[in-house]
Amino acid sequence: MAVGRVVVERFESAVLQGNPLGDPHLRRVPVYLPPSYDEQIGKRYPVIYVLTGFTGRGRMLLNDNPWSESLDDRLNRLIGSGACGEVIVVMPDCFTRYGGSQYLNSTATGRYQDHLVQELVPYVDARYRTLPGRDHRGVVGKSSGGYGALVLGLQHPEVFGAVASHSGDVVFDYCYRGDIPKFCGEVQRGGGLARWLQSFESKVQKKTEDLHVLNILAMAACYSPNPATKPLGVDFPIDLETGAWRQDVWERWLDQDPMRLLERHPMALRSMKCVYLDAGVRDEWSLHLGARLFSARLKQHRVEHELQEFDDGHKNVSYRYDVSLPKLAGALA
Amino acid sequence: MAVGRVVVERFESAVLQGNPLGDPHLRRVPVYLPPSYDEQIGKRYPVIYVLTGFTGRGRMLLNDNPWSESLDDRLNRLIGSGACGEVIVVMPDCFTRYGGSQYLNSTATGRYQDHLVQELVPYVDARYRTLPGRDHRGVVGKSSGGYGALVLGLQHPEVFGAVASHSGDVVFDYCYRGDIPKFCGEVQRGGGLARWLQSFESKVQKKTEDLHVLNILAMAACYSPNPATKPLGVDFPIDLETGAWRQDVWERWLDQDPMRLLERHPMALRSMKCVYLDAGVRDEWSLHLGARLFSARLKQHRVEHELQEFDDGHKNVSYRYDVSLPKLAGALA
Amino acid sequence: MAVGRVVVERFESAVLQGNPLGDPHLRRVPVYLPPSYDEQIGKRYPVIYVLTGFTGRGRMLLNDNPWSESLDDRLNRLIGSGACGEVIVVMPDCFTRYGGSQYLNSTATGRYQDHLVQELVPYVDARYRTLPGRDHRGVVGKSSGGYGALVLGLQHPEVFGAVASHSGDVVFDYCYRGDIPKFCGEVQRGGGLARWLQSFESKVQKKTEDLHVLNILAMAACYSPNPATKPLGVDFPIDLETGAWRQDVWERWLDQDPMRLLERHPMALRSMKCVYLDAGVRDEWSLHLGARLFSARLKQHRVEHELQEFDDGHKNVSYRYDVSLPKLAGALA
Amino acid sequence: MAVGRVVVERFESAVLQGNPLGDPHLRRVPVYLPPSYDEQIGKRYPVIYVLTGFTGRGRMLLNDNPWSESLDDRLNRLIGSGACGEVIVVMPDCFTRYGGSQYLNSTATGRYQDHLVQELVPYVDARYRTLPGRDHRGVVGKSSGGYGALVLGLQHPEVFGAVASHSGDVVFDYCYRGDIPKFCGEVQRGGGLARWLQSFESKVQKKTEDLHVLNILAMAACYSPNPATKPLGVDFPIDLETGAWRQDVWERWLDQDPMRLLERHPMALRSMKCVYLDAGVRDEWSLHLGARLFSARLKQHRVEHELQEFDDGHKNVSYRYDVSLPKLAGALA
Repeated sequence: MAVGRVVVERFESAVLQGNPLGDPHLRRVPVYLPPSYDEQIGKRYPVIYVLTGFTGRGRMLLNDNPWSESLDDRLNRLIGSGACGEVIVVMPDCFTRYGGSQYLNSTATGRYQDHLVQELVPYVDARYRTLPGRDHRGVVGKSSGGYGALVLGLQHPEVFGAVASHSGDVVFDYCYRGDIPKFCGEVQRGGGLARWLQSFESKVQKKTEDLHVLNILAMAACYSPNPATKPLGVDFPIDLETGAWRQDVWERWLDQDPMRLLERHPMALRSMKCVYLDAGVRDEWSLHLGARLFSARLKQHRVEHELQEFDDGHKNVSYRYDVSLPKLAGALA
Repeated sequence: MAVGRVVVERFESAVLQGNPLGDPHLRRVPVYLPPSYDEQIGKRYPVIYVLTGFTGRGRMLLNDNPWSESLDDRLNRLIGSGACGEVIVVMPDCFTRYGGSQYLNSTATGRYQDHLVQELVPYVDARYRTLPGRDHRGVVGKSSGGYGALVLGLQHPEVFGAVASHSGDVVFDYCYRGDIPKFCGEVQRGGGLARWLQSFESKVQKKTEDLHVLNILAMAACYSPNPATKPLGVDFPIDLETGAWRQDVWERWLDQDPMRLLERHPMALRSMKCVYLDAGVRDEWSLHLGARLFSARLKQHRVEHELQEFDDGHKNVSYRYDVSLPKLAGALA
Repeated sequence: MAVGRVVVERFESAVLQGNPLGDPHLRRVPVYLPPSYDEQIGKRYPVIYVLTGFTGRGRMLLNDNPWSESLDDRLNRLIGSGACGEVIVVMPDCFTRYGGSQYLNSTATGRYQDHLVQELVPYVDARYRTLPGRDHRGVVGKSSGGYGALVLGLQHPEVFGAVASHSGDVVFDYCYRGDIPKFCGEVQRGGGLARWLQSFESKVQKKTEDLHVLNILAMAACYSPNPATKPLGVDFPIDLETGAWRQDVWERWLDQDPMRLLERHPMALRSMKCVYLDAGVRDEWSLHLGARLFSARLKQHRVEHELQEFDDGHKNVSYRYDVSLPKLAGALA
Repeated sequence: MAVGRVVVERFESAVLQGNPLGDPHLRRVPVYLPPSYDEQIGKRYPVIYVLTGFTGRGRMLLNDNPWSESLDDRLNRLIGSGACGEVIVVMPDCFTRYGGSQYLNSTATGRYQDHLVQELVPYVDARYRTLPGRDHRGVVGKSSGGYGALVLGLQHPEVFGAVASHSGDVVFDYCYRGDIPKFCGEVQRGGGLARWLQSFESKVQKKTEDLHVLNILAMAACYSPNPATKPLGVDFPIDLETGAWRQDVWERWLDQDPMRLLERHPMALRSMKCVYLDAGVRDEWSLHLGARLFSARLKQHRVEHELQEFDDGHKNVSYRYDVSLPKLAGALA
């Protein structure tokens, strides 16, 4: 059977140069080229950008696992069986020292949305035989990557013509809020933000609880950066000294919630050739409730879309790409 | 060494008769009588009411454990060593089918506050040689029992003259809110409220996750009962169909938060002979943040009090009674 | 409905006086007297001794729990409904500093079997209106208590005429052996036996893992005591310095395995009026395999008995007393 | 900084063709070529074979992780800093349907030792500029891979001149035996071996407990295959019907324990240029005890070697390659 191949681009980002966290501006970005790419040299292909979740970056989609396909193996199977049309798939790296960027621009982390939209998309179009235009360009992701996909669709419908979100971060009141007091308590126990971070980074083994704390730090860095705030240039929706709630900061988070973004950009998703959502009904962050509420609001805005629910939790659901990739490939063909 | 003794009262409550959950109106209420009680028959003693946490009732304070003292053994040791003055200790039973009543009156569960204040206190005073008056009557508890103690102090300063709260439920935004979407998800997966409850009750083993769900049901029954709502006469701060947040219902919860009750009854706690709070700095429900915020507000209201923090989580901290009971006994002597 | 009552005996044991662990020789032993006991004052009753598992003692059988009956409530219900005949039930306390005695005599812990057989049984018969003789005296227990029941039946058929074991320790190769290297590793990490024990005892919270370590210490103290061995007078089936297996010590354990005891006392259980076994098919220590293998061997020895399996694990299975108590009461009537 | 590169060989194995589990005979085997490889085209290099643990295969050593280096990144750093000499590193794939082969020949799984020794080593030597001979060829691995390294050193000292084992499977009585009754219980609950396996394979999410069961199946397939036994051609050290221990089968396992292999091949490890062992002192399978006992026996056989212990458990310890690879590279230079 003919299979595609993966080129790992070493992309030197001008946008990420000198980013505030000292993260590398050289990024390794795998690009999957479909089976016929090297033979049908006049042919052009739709492109799908696949965004990883928190603590992930593009290369991890290619990781080998004993009982779960890597993304290239998955694409080879889906395309080989005819279930999915031939597509170029790009796997960006927007990882940061805090575990992720939410694919947003932030003074606290860097301009990751610009990196994607202004740099990576043009680069891929220039270097590979893509079908030009937003009608042939889609974006999908899981968890924070699903969030990124929705936001890119909402804010850059001129760039992306189809979006899919697996268990994407929607309804921040449900998926983040409960972890914020825990974050505050752990940071206090750890001796403050700077010392907590240092201690986290020096740990040989990062535990699940550590990552829940890091997650809130990362989200704050993405949603409520503030260059004036010491030591990290980040505001938090909770006062780290007193533990008091800071509703003003929380409102800044909510402004980035896809629920609110949808109200500000109601037409963006209506222009999409495909809007697909799903989530597991045992999602530990209640993202299935988020998906449902988002879907209900989409209906009110008359955005055609599909919502699927499946019987699983939040983790290890990459098998859901079997559903989204063929839909996107079909819509973008 | 002289030791006290425990009488287990079988108290027939008029107030709880015909309660909406069909819970028994006959309650077994242990009363600890101090070592000298049977000898110094002219002597009168201060009284402390000890309120258990969620899923508890008074008798459980007497449970034998391999490495943790029962309350009567603890009192015998504390009194025997002179660390604690002689007191009568009453262990009420306000358990319900949902796991607890928060020691409140509710149309959905029963009039448990009335049961305590109108029935049990007079009964104890009539039957035992107590020192009369609120200046010699205190209340203390852990978790939901700490909540109960604070609320009784705030709402009935004419009955209780000293309060202590171990890891009491304060700042509902932190201790409950994060569990509410999870509750909604589990109830939906369980086929709705009635079926979830039935399934819970038929389980031979109740799991920790089950109890987290039950906890939100119980809190709603206490904080936002509504006789008009089917099937349980309870409103929820989340729409169990759509998953949408219901801020109006949540405001009814917040009205019962000790933080708000304090604003409505600012003088009540100032009249106390002792106000004591503590919480573990690893409290899984962030109740140490709650205690600190409550303490800060007490300061602003010039309520004399003491706040202690200790290095532990929420569970199995009955050893903290070693701190509160002597303080209360001293203040009420 | 008529209910029984519980007398908590404060039994001063001559046998346990000066025991090597400094454990109290004064033991609180609850005795349940059936509903008719105080009215039918000429009537005599069969007696059942109920033995708790590791870390337990008799009083804990009376502990109040939100969704699980205490033993006295259970007996009242079973007897009240006619499911179970009227019996006197004795709840011995054979707890030790190490968490339990296995109801055996040991130079490292004390003579707990003698305490039961030589002291407690005669005392109960003298003090209460029991039916005299082994044909009216049974013993049952859970986990270590199930072990105790089997051993008492095997070694003292002149004292007990019926035995029942819930998830009793049988086939030591399965239930203990896997934990022994872990014990060795933890003791080494803890700085040796004495320091580990000191550290365990000073912990406010005993964790599950700690109790698994303690369990092996306790079993060794029961099965392979050795007055010549420092510091605790206990041999271990593993060399605590090198980690090497000590088959000679292990053989001493195996000699106390009901599997081997059965071979030495083949007639004892055949004389029983009731032999009942059960275990959960998800028992974490594989005691259901132990029960099956023991049952198979009983068959070969033509011991009439009953084995039940149920769909649960090892913990919180006191509801199984609903099965064993009526059987024992019936056989001993 | 100059970095090495990875070639992923697609190796068509004659030895594995038609293997009994239907596993692929085409294997992807990454080969790391050091930084100078492409420039110094006359230079030859030592070779190190790195063997993954259970459920692993060579490619997984290259997996990208947020806070843990992939093996190629690790080698680039170690070599780049001068800490480690330049080496070619081969990452074999001996994965099977059961999760692994222990790098042994077995009628139940396939001839994985032959595949390594007879096929892969000659292939690598023929295709890459290796330093010829066992004095320049080493093998290292973690867990099952550590086991594989020790066994290859013991059984094929003519092929490998240096071995290192991280937390390798040694002293089977400690690392496997305790899991065998649990395996039996789970297989019985799952409806027998064939049905359990089918059910395992159909699960979208494999749980930790499932993998513990699979592990014993895999080990039996490696250590006690038996073509005459239905349905899988594997004997087990426990009777899957009755739960009885089968010491004869267990002896076949023990014959493959490095402890016994050492007695049969005492000279093999003495001929090594490097023997290195380590394990975490919190190893959940007590492999640190195994390492110590093996080390003690090596001393008695006068095998020069090094044993290190570190403060960690069994999982996620790939950082230990920082210690072993430089030692091996140095010894093999």
